[in-house]
Amino acid sequence: MHIPLDRQHDIPLYLQIEEALRRAILSGVFADGDKLPSTRALAAELSVSRLTADNAYAELAAKGFLQQRRGSGAYVRYLPPPPSQPLPLLQGEFPLDRFTTVTSRLDGYADIPLPPDTINFAAGIGSPKIFPLDEFRQILQSILRRHAEEAFSYGDYCGYYPLRDTLSRILSAQGIPTRPEQLLITNGSQHAISLVSQSLLAPGDTVLVEEPTYAEALALFRLHKVNIIALPSDQQGMQLDTLPALLALHHPKLIYCIPNFNNPTGRCMSEGRRHQLLHIARAAGVTILEDDYVGDLRYSGQKLPSLRSLAAPGEVIYVSTFSKMLLPSMRIGYLVADQPHYTQLACLKHVDSFTSSNLIQRALDAFVTVGRYDKQLRRACRLYRQHRDAMAEALTQTLPLGCQFEIPDGGLFIWLQLPENVPISQLMPLAWQAGVTFAKGGGFYTQEASGEFSLRLNFAANSPQLIIQGIARLSAAIRQCQAEKSPA
Amino acid sequence: MHIPLDRQHDIPLYLQIEEALRRAILSGVFADGDKLPSTRALAAELSVSRLTADNAYAELAAKGFLQQRRGSGAYVRYLPPPPSQPLPLLQGEFPLDRFTTVTSRLDGYADIPLPPDTINFAAGIGSPKIFPLDEFRQILQSILRRHAEEAFSYGDYCGYYPLRDTLSRILSAQGIPTRPEQLLITNGSQHAISLVSQSLLAPGDTVLVEEPTYAEALALFRLHKVNIIALPSDQQGMQLDTLPALLALHHPKLIYCIPNFNNPTGRCMSEGRRHQLLHIARAAGVTILEDDYVGDLRYSGQKLPSLRSLAAPGEVIYVSTFSKMLLPSMRIGYLVADQPHYTQLACLKHVDSFTSSNLIQRALDAFVTVGRYDKQLRRACRLYRQHRDAMAEALTQTLPLGCQFEIPDGGLFIWLQLPENVPISQLMPLAWQAGVTFAKGGGFYTQEASGEFSLRLNFAANSPQLIIQGIARLSAAIRQCQAEKSPA
Repeated sequence: MHIPLDRQHDIPLYLQIEEALRRAILSGVFADGDKLPSTRALAAELSVSRLTADNAYAELAAKGFLQQRRGSGAYVRYLPPPPSQPLPLLQGEFPLDRFTTVTSRLDGYADIPLPPDTINFAAGIGSPKIFPLDEFRQILQSILRRHAEEAFSYGDYCGYYPLRDTLSRILSAQGIPTRPEQLLITNGSQHAISLVSQSLLAPGDTVLVEEPTYAEALALFRLHKVNIIALPSDQQGMQLDTLPALLALHHPKLIYCIPNFNNPTGRCMSEGRRHQLLHIARAAGVTILEDDYVGDLRYSGQKLPSLRSLAAPGEVIYVSTFSKMLLPSMRIGYLVADQPHYTQLACLKHVDSFTSSNLIQRALDAFVTVGRYDKQLRRACRLYRQHRDAMAEALTQTLPLGCQFEIPDGGLFIWLQLPENVPISQLMPLAWQAGVTFAKGGGFYTQEASGEFSLRLNFAANSPQLIIQGIARLSAAIRQCQAEKSPA
Repeated sequence: MHIPLDRQHDIPLYLQIEEALRRAILSGVFADGDKLPSTRALAAELSVSRLTADNAYAELAAKGFLQQRRGSGAYVRYLPPPPSQPLPLLQGEFPLDRFTTVTSRLDGYADIPLPPDTINFAAGIGSPKIFPLDEFRQILQSILRRHAEEAFSYGDYCGYYPLRDTLSRILSAQGIPTRPEQLLITNGSQHAISLVSQSLLAPGDTVLVEEPTYAEALALFRLHKVNIIALPSDQQGMQLDTLPALLALHHPKLIYCIPNFNNPTGRCMSEGRRHQLLHIARAAGVTILEDDYVGDLRYSGQKLPSLRSLAAPGEVIYVSTFSKMLLPSMRIGYLVADQPHYTQLACLKHVDSFTSSNLIQRALDAFVTVGRYDKQLRRACRLYRQHRDAMAEALTQTLPLGCQFEIPDGGLFIWLQLPENVPISQLMPLAWQAGVTFAKGGGFYTQEASGEFSLRLNFAANSPQLIIQGIARLSAAIRQCQAEKSPA
């Protein structure tokens, strides 16, 4: 056994030996049950003292990698993780496991890396292709050269002020008059939703949502033990007929709503409903959380006023992000709020995680001038419109009868209704075999079963070529599912 | 009025005009009450139809920037935000305002930028000087060149695996055997504490702390409406005599503790007390949160075993950070936990803010090899020891009688006791006038008044020269405070 030892190193020899052995075990050189040399033999081979070898084995045993049997020797104890295989589809009320995952695919296989060549329609993000990486790299580099010390300080707790200023100008130009003092930078828009939830909702409180809605918001509310009351939605968004009665009955502390390009349906709330929602919420004194994660990614149809722009101060907290148009790993989102919400949220942000990365905020601010934002937005809209059209065309051409979908005016997703003989629990494994995955409908409902005949397709992230190929696979899987169920 | 119009653009002309006018208003070209040209005149000037001009004004009015008075014309309606001005000193039980601040100085002037030449002993961070910025910049650059797309993806929800692997080796080498699967990367250690608090504590629950303790942890618990029971501490750390009785009486869900170089006192919990604390907590079934924010910054004395290393699985959640030794704006901290805590915390992290910046995690992993970590640590310890010694020396030489302090064996802080005739509320303004600031003692206690004769001095962040100068100023301010109080 060869173990290179550094006798000058701070790390004691026995730990060097222990680490080398552990790596050998972890990498499969030794398997469970293998007998290791005696400490006497090991000591001789490595020219170390018997005590050093003893200590190395003791350490290894303490870490659980070795079993020392008196009079018999030392045996490896290590069961490698089983080779990855599809986990059973997730069951139950709250699929905790989904949230310890490599990605957030919501396809029920979230802990399993996608097999090579699987076409992934399950993601919640845009295309990395549209991001001008070289330009951004240069900006980052120039900040690191010129302002490294400031960029690596904590910085302003509410967010780098010039970035808040830029953002407030962009929002104001989009019809949401905003001052930098109303803007709080967060670690992505999910974090903004989390802060609002922490600030306004205690366990046992009630939140009112439209259904279907953003799966990770539902998961967040559930994890905080908040009661969720869901209103159904139609082509005009959240249905409001029963809202006043529900407000009177359940006294929710918050209404959570995605008026533009709802995730997952892609639908927009009509302007009339927006006014109506505000009116009803105002009368009941309930705060609205407006999640506008892709409000500016519009490819057709008329722009609609945001709830925030229609509301009086304090009625609507607005949340958005750069992630969908720029890059997910920026981890920079923001919220817009009035007093007293703003100070509460800023305090909470402070005690939650201090500041967001000052370096990335500065780079974003240098990158996102108002003009460049518009340019980048046009670029994203042009590309995503092509992708949407390619997917709509492919779906129209290849889907079997009984499937239904609408073409959304913007956003990232097409929401597909399956025929009654194709439940998603049966389709999913077939789709994986066919080399395609998507987000299961269930995650977007308060009751998983409500989504048994729905699925969400991301059209933004893949090229038209991959989209065509992936939809062909999906259609084939649906047909296969139908064939398996129909009498022979 | 010149408005550039793009007649080929998707955006209709009236909206282009509206946007240009809105920007002019927001940027101050037009002020509140200014009369705009008639739509007829505007249409002629821009060579657009009268209807287009009408629509532009209607849009501007709908957004609240314009008031159209029949027969009189169109007037700008926009009140710019008032200029920001220094806030008054903070008052009251929970100084919410402290947490919306530019820095976290805890000196009571947190919202006011330090006057030039003020020597700042109030910070909670190390010296930016020790960080090899050039090296880190090169690593960042190389990642952006070679792995930009992966670095900008969400990445692993529990943290970039190779970084977790590296960290687990570093921790294991420090005597805290850790597997990557027990490590959760967070947005700084404050975020780790916040996740533990969110996971284990509901409003109305009780947490047990030593006193004094980390101000931002107290603020976090308070903001979550958690009851705080404080145990006094002495030179051996948390006093445990009454702990069993308090546990039986209050049934806390968590014990929060900083065994190494307590913030603010700099004291370490003795090894005997560590065993005793674990023993008592085990008997009561209470989880311990061990905050080891600078445990490896030791300059003298004997290393002590971490609570985590002495505990059985599940008994201790361990939290630490890179911020103090590297750079605060990394915003990368971590926690170590066993099941079932780990999955709960990972789920919470997921729904709270998804991943931490993949780019920064990859850069850290490339930077922090085990060897480089040791080198960087030795460098930090060498420098901070000099700073500590310089401050201790300056304090010994210049402080008036009646002041007391201990020389800590590590960490960042010296904790100073003032004489009875120098309350901090009177010293603070004098110190500011003298050009020095520090953290007031009150923030580290559950009752602000308990810290009225204590202050925390950061010795790590400033050079010995500045330390000597700053301590001279502080001593002068203390003398001045005494002189003003003594009879003429």
